[in-house]
Amino acid sequence: MSEAVNAYVAENEVRLLDELLALLRIPSISTLPEHKGDVLQAAEFVAQSLRNAGMEHVEIIPTDRHPLIYADWLHAPGKPTVLCYGHYDVQPPDPLEHWLSPPFEPQIRDGNIYARGACDDKGQMYMHVKAVEALQAVHGKLPLNLRFIIEGEEEIGGASIAKFVAANPAKLKADVGLVSDTALYADGIPTLCVGLRGLVYMEVEAAGPARDLHSGLYGGAAPNAVYGLIELLAKAKDANGTLLISGIYDDVDEPAQAELDSWRSLPFSEREFLEKEVGAAELVGEPGRSTLEKVWSRPTLEVHGIAGGFAGAGAKTVIPAKATAKVSMRLVPRQDPQKVVALFRRWVADHSPRGIRTEVRVLSGGPAVVVNPDHPAIRVAARCFADTLGRSTVFIRSGGSIPIVGDFAQHLGIPTVLMGFGLPDDGLHSPNEKYRLQNYYTGIKTIAHFFEQYGEGH
Amino acid sequence: MSEAVNAYVAENEVRLLDELLALLRIPSISTLPEHKGDVLQAAEFVAQSLRNAGMEHVEIIPTDRHPLIYADWLHAPGKPTVLCYGHYDVQPPDPLEHWLSPPFEPQIRDGNIYARGACDDKGQMYMHVKAVEALQAVHGKLPLNLRFIIEGEEEIGGASIAKFVAANPAKLKADVGLVSDTALYADGIPTLCVGLRGLVYMEVEAAGPARDLHSGLYGGAAPNAVYGLIELLAKAKDANGTLLISGIYDDVDEPAQAELDSWRSLPFSEREFLEKEVGAAELVGEPGRSTLEKVWSRPTLEVHGIAGGFAGAGAKTVIPAKATAKVSMRLVPRQDPQKVVALFRRWVADHSPRGIRTEVRVLSGGPAVVVNPDHPAIRVAARCFADTLGRSTVFIRSGGSIPIVGDFAQHLGIPTVLMGFGLPDDGLHSPNEKYRLQNYYTGIKTIAHFFEQYGEGH
Repeated sequence: MSEAVNAYVAENEVRLLDELLALLRIPSISTLPEHKGDVLQAAEFVAQSLRNAGMEHVEIIPTDRHPLIYADWLHAPGKPTVLCYGHYDVQPPDPLEHWLSPPFEPQIRDGNIYARGACDDKGQMYMHVKAVEALQAVHGKLPLNLRFIIEGEEEIGGASIAKFVAANPAKLKADVGLVSDTALYADGIPTLCVGLRGLVYMEVEAAGPARDLHSGLYGGAAPNAVYGLIELLAKAKDANGTLLISGIYDDVDEPAQAELDSWRSLPFSEREFLEKEVGAAELVGEPGRSTLEKVWSRPTLEVHGIAGGFAGAGAKTVIPAKATAKVSMRLVPRQDPQKVVALFRRWVADHSPRGIRTEVRVLSGGPAVVVNPDHPAIRVAARCFADTLGRSTVFIRSGGSIPIVGDFAQHLGIPTVLMGFGLPDDGLHSPNEKYRLQNYYTGIKTIAHFFEQYGEGH
Repeated sequence: MSEAVNAYVAENEVRLLDELLALLRIPSISTLPEHKGDVLQAAEFVAQSLRNAGMEHVEIIPTDRHPLIYADWLHAPGKPTVLCYGHYDVQPPDPLEHWLSPPFEPQIRDGNIYARGACDDKGQMYMHVKAVEALQAVHGKLPLNLRFIIEGEEEIGGASIAKFVAANPAKLKADVGLVSDTALYADGIPTLCVGLRGLVYMEVEAAGPARDLHSGLYGGAAPNAVYGLIELLAKAKDANGTLLISGIYDDVDEPAQAELDSWRSLPFSEREFLEKEVGAAELVGEPGRSTLEKVWSRPTLEVHGIAGGFAGAGAKTVIPAKATAKVSMRLVPRQDPQKVVALFRRWVADHSPRGIRTEVRVLSGGPAVVVNPDHPAIRVAARCFADTLGRSTVFIRSGGSIPIVGDFAQHLGIPTVLMGFGLPDDGLHSPNEKYRLQNYYTGIKTIAHFFEQYGEGH
């Protein structure tokens, strides 16, 4: 491990943090049109950081929605090329009332940075930039070739980067991708993620009467759009959470026995998971499967939100005309997003209640990914990670989705190292999202170390 | 029929309308705290109108929420006393985008007044005031004794007036109540309503995880509050709309054969009801029952609105921690609201999905009412109504709820004449609520005529 890089990080701790906090103060919420200017500001901030770190050809590339950032440094002939990916956009912070400090006014408490995007993904994406800065400062050059492609639409489906990657394989030519948007299996355990679930995200709209009706005068004879949507969606799963959408399990494979065995060997307390992370009355889901199996290797259907009728304070006695739900399905390897959408559409058509017209709109989608743990870059990464944290690296899957990994595989023909430094309780997409300050510094060092080692061909 | 009153109404048409329009311009939405001042302004407007009409002892009576208005005129010894009731509060106007003209800027189109509250109940309540004005102008006195009690909380459950009636039976002593908050069975058909459904209005809250969770990392193992609420509520009815809440039909009587026969003799086109009023793909509800039976004589459960999770534009992949639904049940005669609430609470407790904690909060409730059509006041009202419109009066029920009628029966021991002049397509609680201008004038005349005839003992 390069002591010089470690020393650089130690000497610059305050400034490295201050710069990240400045980025976290920009409310770059990609899904909300009123934050379009903030998203652009965050892009400019990241581009300037790349220039300051010594990257070249830094470009802000306009898209249909939020810009991409490209940069490269290609002065290491004969050395491999790593393509770093991250995203500078964040999820909306609501419900705001549950935040202990405002989501865009980062606060350090108990060694954590609290802010929307602290971990997902500003804090992690920024480690790549700072690893470059450290290597340039220490060596005056980089130990391998690097490209960056950073997007501002990850939280809204990533349509622009998907198009860009498909259209520009030469510009992004590399040997391996590097993404830091995942978590350590547990604090202190070096972890590489070798599998991600896919996702299809949809809106389901139900329409009943032509207008909201008085529930006294029409109740008992007129269809109710909210109730119709409730009736429909309730049929998607049985009481255990097993999906009832016809054909949905056709392409679902069980994980290999070796992988299942390795999952079983991981430290895992169902009770801690329930009490510290989930905080519900009990865990649910398909019977006969471990929690890790459920979240890593099984497809799911979730309703993320529902709206319709009168939801203000007090009482209003209407039969609502319309209702909408946000519905997604997580996919596992071999499930084809388009086929899943088609199965869902057919299921909705077949199960829509009497008197209710339904419509399904697809917002985004991407397949699940698996990475071969024997790839040279993965082996180097596993060793560097183990060196930094002083114990062996574990290989896990994640239940989340990082669509870019599928795009890199399909259009660039490269695997991706998923080397993340988050913690399982970082509260991504939740109030009080946090990122462990120490992990930010550890990440910068580990990534610089990985660049050095992979560049040297070890 | 008093030609003098008719002439007075004809001569004052413009002013009678202008005054109603001024009242309709006040956005007295009782359920929204930000409109509290408007509700008070509407109360003051109505109180002043009562004074101007010649009513005495006009009082604005403060309550825990919105004021009551009391007035009397008791100078007809030996004559009966009528207690006039109405409400000056209105439903929220949302969804605003469906209104052709703003809800609180009344517009006359095609002989109708379009405004929130035009029919329910400002336009109808105001007819009582104007009938008094006409009689005073023409005769210099009233033909019987009158009391008014007008509330500002009808659309939010009427808690204050219920308390007031229970506590002040002497102050409200009368022979009969008069309420104009119902509709003609069809345009031109004089109609008295002799039955109303009751109502219990509740909020059901579901809680899953302690905070919103990332649906990728936890999906498949963590309970989802929105989905849990969906699963629960879907179990309340079968696919036909028959209620599945245990014990709910125990106290439900079938209407008498004579009443059913009379309903069958009413002009009714299921197709017109569907196409002109409901506007859905089809009508629904319990099989083997006519539409009038369903809406007049059967209990129902409706979900008026549901909210939870992320419902903004675009995508957010959370497993929501909380969800809430507004749920009401309409009741028929003999169903006890408290017993129904208890059955519902037990049903919720028994059917809450795994991992979901549920809570039921009751917002308001009142029993169903039936009125004896042979009461002298009802007979006089039926004759006056028939005289004004030139055909015989029909006796119907309404699926709606007017809790005050039950309070009058229970605490004052009096029946209530439900003499309303709305039309079935007036769009109560909906966008583009309207009131037929002609019915406003007809109502003033018919009510004045009823006061004259009932005062003379005919």
